[in-house]
Amino acid sequence: MGKNIILTGDRPTGRLHLGHYVGSLKRRVELQNSGEYDEINILIADDQALTDNADDPGKIRDNIINVVLDYLSAGLDPEKTTICVQSALPALHALTFYYMNLVTTARLSRNPTVKAEIQMRGFADEGLPAGFFTYPVSQAADITAFNANVVPVGEDQLPMLEQTREIVEKFNRVYGETLVLPKAMIPENETQRRLPGVDGKAKMSKSLGNCIYLSDTPKAVKKQVNGHMFTDPQHLRVEDPGHIEGNVVFTYLDAFCTKDHFAEYLPEYSDLDEMKEHYRRGGLGDGTCKKFLISVLEETLGPIRAERARWEADIDTVYDILKAGTEKAVETTNETLGRVRKAMRIDYFEDRSIVKEWEAILRKQKNQ
Amino acid sequence: MGKNIILTGDRPTGRLHLGHYVGSLKRRVELQNSGEYDEINILIADDQALTDNADDPGKIRDNIINVVLDYLSAGLDPEKTTICVQSALPALHALTFYYMNLVTTARLSRNPTVKAEIQMRGFADEGLPAGFFTYPVSQAADITAFNANVVPVGEDQLPMLEQTREIVEKFNRVYGETLVLPKAMIPENETQRRLPGVDGKAKMSKSLGNCIYLSDTPKAVKKQVNGHMFTDPQHLRVEDPGHIEGNVVFTYLDAFCTKDHFAEYLPEYSDLDEMKEHYRRGGLGDGTCKKFLISVLEETLGPIRAERARWEADIDTVYDILKAGTEKAVETTNETLGRVRKAMRIDYFEDRSIVKEWEAILRKQKNQ
Repeated sequence: MGKNIILTGDRPTGRLHLGHYVGSLKRRVELQNSGEYDEINILIADDQALTDNADDPGKIRDNIINVVLDYLSAGLDPEKTTICVQSALPALHALTFYYMNLVTTARLSRNPTVKAEIQMRGFADEGLPAGFFTYPVSQAADITAFNANVVPVGEDQLPMLEQTREIVEKFNRVYGETLVLPKAMIPENETQRRLPGVDGKAKMSKSLGNCIYLSDTPKAVKKQVNGHMFTDPQHLRVEDPGHIEGNVVFTYLDAFCTKDHFAEYLPEYSDLDEMKEHYRRGGLGDGTCKKFLISVLEETLGPIRAERARWEADIDTVYDILKAGTEKAVETTNETLGRVRKAMRIDYFEDRSIVKEWEAILRKQKNQ
Repeated sequence: MGKNIILTGDRPTGRLHLGHYVGSLKRRVELQNSGEYDEINILIADDQALTDNADDPGKIRDNIINVVLDYLSAGLDPEKTTICVQSALPALHALTFYYMNLVTTARLSRNPTVKAEIQMRGFADEGLPAGFFTYPVSQAADITAFNANVVPVGEDQLPMLEQTREIVEKFNRVYGETLVLPKAMIPENETQRRLPGVDGKAKMSKSLGNCIYLSDTPKAVKKQVNGHMFTDPQHLRVEDPGHIEGNVVFTYLDAFCTKDHFAEYLPEYSDLDEMKEHYRRGGLGDGTCKKFLISVLEETLGPIRAERARWEADIDTVYDILKAGTEKAVETTNETLGRVRKAMRIDYFEDRSIVKEWEAILRKQKNQ
């Protein structure tokens, strides 16, 4: 049987925030520690980030360190998980190049994820970079290069994985069984799927200023929660009944709080249901809720912050970790490219066997 | 001042024919022997051939040897000219990948050469492979990787070179002066531009069976000229006046015959003008013209055929030539990729200097 291999990653365009943590990072650490996977590979997708940041490579260069620090601080262990940089893996460029022949432009145009992102990034007006249009092909290169059979993705990314599966199936059909067909691992529950911004907008986004970063100071976290977190606009006086739906404080509590947190910080309630019940009927103020949320978030953020401080004091070691992970990934992905080139029969210079082949072809041509 | 560097090449999808010889190969040999160029690089474009032959890599593998033999037989000298295989140059895949971010899909769609080829290859119906759609970007990678400042192209290929120039200008503007801006070298005269097929169709094409190959036997050449070459359908009897325009025999004589050929094979005329004059007024039979043309063609084809026989007996050496040329090209193109990565600032692992940079960024972040 094949190995259980995971590939996942992030675009290094900024520090990671609670949305990343809830949506993927926490789960990655659990998967890493589950012992159920032979390999976990995490790709810092600088090349993919360049597809829509071609004129600002400095931003990506600067944020690679932030992303690696966030990974290590959140519990990814370089002994168990390979952390590597996409642009330093030459096999990915070659695989992208060859997979491009197996996908039509019409198929790429139909990709709903790309369609949505084209809108979001304003490319409809200024012109769509060809590299962005074809990035699902580059993702197929990433996934297959690592022989990943499991790819943790959000539901909105399912069309991307479907594109990869089509490429794998076509490659294996045309050139013979070579690539591993991956399957998606989608989030187990609703809160994992997407944490809203503190302002209630669907997504945390640097440009909206509605993020809580894993590297934020306690003061910054407090400011985002107390100063900007969206609650219930109808809930004007403490004694008014409040709404839970769309109330970001409760969405975050859903994602982060446990029974133990109540025992420690808010013993008036035994669990979140009791607290919600009180809020609904009136008499529970937003200030109390927010104070509790801050304590709850600090249970997650405190240890991450402490770990980050430790790593920040030793960037030399972080560099070595990233370099070693990347070197390991170079080997893995080159091995896949070797198999691909062999299957495509473009491995002319691996040995001299083609000399005999060519001699036979020339004899045959002569006799025609 | 920069060096004078040429890049040119062919898709290895079949043996080369007189159309290739007249349109490019003869000129390449002249350029090689002129001593005016520091480097001449000839790329056997198997990767580009795969963009519309993805399901038939064997055809390309088999024809690489034919193309190399045709090159060597026609006078390309591996001591002076680097002959190399595209798919074995990893830098080309990486450069293609990065240049894709600098071109919009709208711009690629407007490329008239690609438009025409889409029609010709029937992709309008069956779907356009993304690799074919973006092959002008791959050509930009080829040209720039070799630092070529001169690219011999047919007039129909000028839009491709324009695309490369745009990519170079954009790259240099965004990332700083890095790439050499190439210029086109277009054919000097009409017959160089395109030799028609023996049937009078605009282009020699394997599928139309209207080619004379450089490797054809004397018998095969004779058969194509005597059996299939289009002359003047009005010219029924020898004494009838004949037409020169559209008469393939005379088009080929325009391309190949010299005064010396008349002295040797058809001393009745001192030059082609005299011969044409006789044909026009009547009294010169097509058989005589064709016999003369065969002698003239053999003056070119005879020595090429003899050289080919010599090389065919030593495919081991041909393999070594191709391997050595490719190894040299790997070095040249990797050097360019190194400069590109440095300019884009994605050369993270070249040395440890990024550690200091990252430390500075983290300090700055802390103080914000």
